[in-house]
Amino acid sequence: MSDATNMLVDGEWRTDVRRDTGDGGEFERDETSFRNWIDGAVPEAGAEPVENPEFPAEPGRYHVYINRACPWAHRVAMTRALNGLEDVISLSLSKPERADEGWEFSEEQPDPLYGSEYLREIYTRADDEYTGRVTVPVLWDKERETIVNNESEEIMRTLDTAFDEFGNGVDLYPEAYREEIDERIADVYPRINNGVYRAGFAGTQAAYDDAVDDLFDALDEYERRLSDRRYLVGDRLTEADVATFATLVRFDHVYHTHFRCNRRAIHEYPNLWGYTKDVFQTPGIEGTVNLDHITRHYYKSHESLNPKRIVPTGPDVDFSAPHARDSKPGLSFEELAEDATAD
Amino acid sequence: MSDATNMLVDGEWRTDVRRDTGDGGEFERDETSFRNWIDGAVPEAGAEPVENPEFPAEPGRYHVYINRACPWAHRVAMTRALNGLEDVISLSLSKPERADEGWEFSEEQPDPLYGSEYLREIYTRADDEYTGRVTVPVLWDKERETIVNNESEEIMRTLDTAFDEFGNGVDLYPEAYREEIDERIADVYPRINNGVYRAGFAGTQAAYDDAVDDLFDALDEYERRLSDRRYLVGDRLTEADVATFATLVRFDHVYHTHFRCNRRAIHEYPNLWGYTKDVFQTPGIEGTVNLDHITRHYYKSHESLNPKRIVPTGPDVDFSAPHARDSKPGLSFEELAEDATAD
Repeated sequence: MSDATNMLVDGEWRTDVRRDTGDGGEFERDETSFRNWIDGAVPEAGAEPVENPEFPAEPGRYHVYINRACPWAHRVAMTRALNGLEDVISLSLSKPERADEGWEFSEEQPDPLYGSEYLREIYTRADDEYTGRVTVPVLWDKERETIVNNESEEIMRTLDTAFDEFGNGVDLYPEAYREEIDERIADVYPRINNGVYRAGFAGTQAAYDDAVDDLFDALDEYERRLSDRRYLVGDRLTEADVATFATLVRFDHVYHTHFRCNRRAIHEYPNLWGYTKDVFQTPGIEGTVNLDHITRHYYKSHESLNPKRIVPTGPDVDFSAPHARDSKPGLSFEELAEDATAD
Repeated sequence: MSDATNMLVDGEWRTDVRRDTGDGGEFERDETSFRNWIDGAVPEAGAEPVENPEFPAEPGRYHVYINRACPWAHRVAMTRALNGLEDVISLSLSKPERADEGWEFSEEQPDPLYGSEYLREIYTRADDEYTGRVTVPVLWDKERETIVNNESEEIMRTLDTAFDEFGNGVDLYPEAYREEIDERIADVYPRINNGVYRAGFAGTQAAYDDAVDDLFDALDEYERRLSDRRYLVGDRLTEADVATFATLVRFDHVYHTHFRCNRRAIHEYPNLWGYTKDVFQTPGIEGTVNLDHITRHYYKSHESLNPKRIVPTGPDVDFSAPHARDSKPGLSFEELAEDATAD
């Protein structure tokens, strides 16, 4: 569950190997490699908090490497902002464009810890035998100098559940809704988050047709779901919304045109569009959205979809426009935050 | 003013030579080669009808080679239908996909006159020294066995003005509006008809940015123009509408995604969209629109824009939906046709 990557093939770091398609031309996403949990994190509904003295939750100890373009990394940036962990967990970016050598640092987007040139150096610093996929996000332990985890959903969950005492008290994985949040994330992942990739990276017409049918079935279903509720689960913003928003906010600028998901734009669905604006306007979120990085990354990184690497202008939509979602049942984030402070 | 072509280069017929871009990466369209007029045609406002005994207007004598994908050829098909010339001027299609050897005939789309394999054979039949661009539409004289004209605007004008006595009497170039029609066509051509190509075939980001700004400035202007009038010129459907519609009807399925003109879809402009549906629903027009040919052609013919040649699903829009344009000042086509019959 990670976006663009590079990996070592025949002694060369390559970015073009991950576009794996099956025999029928369908896109298949590989697994990520580092899967540790920080002490106190709750991996899933019904689970006890993890006990892991190797990686204690401590302010200032951890760092996340992300990229503003990547929807998987975006979950981590959003969770960090919503939980008020900006001063607890440091964050840095890589260059939006992914070069032949994979995710790269630059003067504007340096590696603040080691001054690395490429993100792959972070992976080999953690494991000098590492030859697998180099993806964002990466949760890095500055003390042990290793990767804790590079799986976006697990990092989101970790930040949200293991750092309660250091953040603002907002909980995006409240106990009463955990099972439903897990179900929702598991549903949105293949159908929407990865659904757009299945369409964009399909190798055959049949694989594309299937992917795009499935994607728009899912969007239609979520449009209906959001007609009588403000958020996807329960009465409040949760991790399920974070995971879903990361795809919706990129849809009209990137997936609609670049991934050829052009049956309908998100801004043409009344509820999905209102919902997208609502989440965008939640305190902390706007600062995690960089449409310039998003469009530059996609349009400049995929030869097979956009050989000329020209970045389209994108639709003239305003994420800051009124959303009128306050009228739907559900707490506002402000109410949620006040609630958290009162605890 | 012709779409996809091939031409002879170093002894090989190639399709890739026309994507000419200037030093600044801007797309430049070449001139067409055969420019004769049929006797009685009126080339432009203020001109006398052409006297040309070589090419007299006769029913059954002329044939048009077109392609359902090509917007320039579409003008000719529309004019033939609106003027009721289906039994006067024969018409045939080439395959929607343009192969390496250029426009091609097939079992489903044969050359009914000579059984040619490629359209270029029609060009060399007219001129055995011909090595230039091979484009649709072609107006062919079956008696003299030569090309009369291969310039879309001139063929449209010829069909509309030289065959009055053989058609239904509808006049898309009425004397009172000729100057304005010429002006309008001359304005729409660079800004909209060719404007989408300038965006799609731009070779640099700067050329794309300029092209797309110009295109959407023009669309915004025409959106305003159509707010208080049903058609572009005068009180009726004219050649100016024919020329403009050919681009608008392709926009959302092709130009928006394939040519990256994704700032806004035509179905998002209230007046342009109502106007597009109105013209689509004018008797005779729907039969000239083949969205399957249109999408297959573009997405399968341009390696530099869509290397995988997968055809996107396209937006879920209905050209047959109510348009409510009847309330704007302007005659309906039915009124126009009745008017013509009464003459």
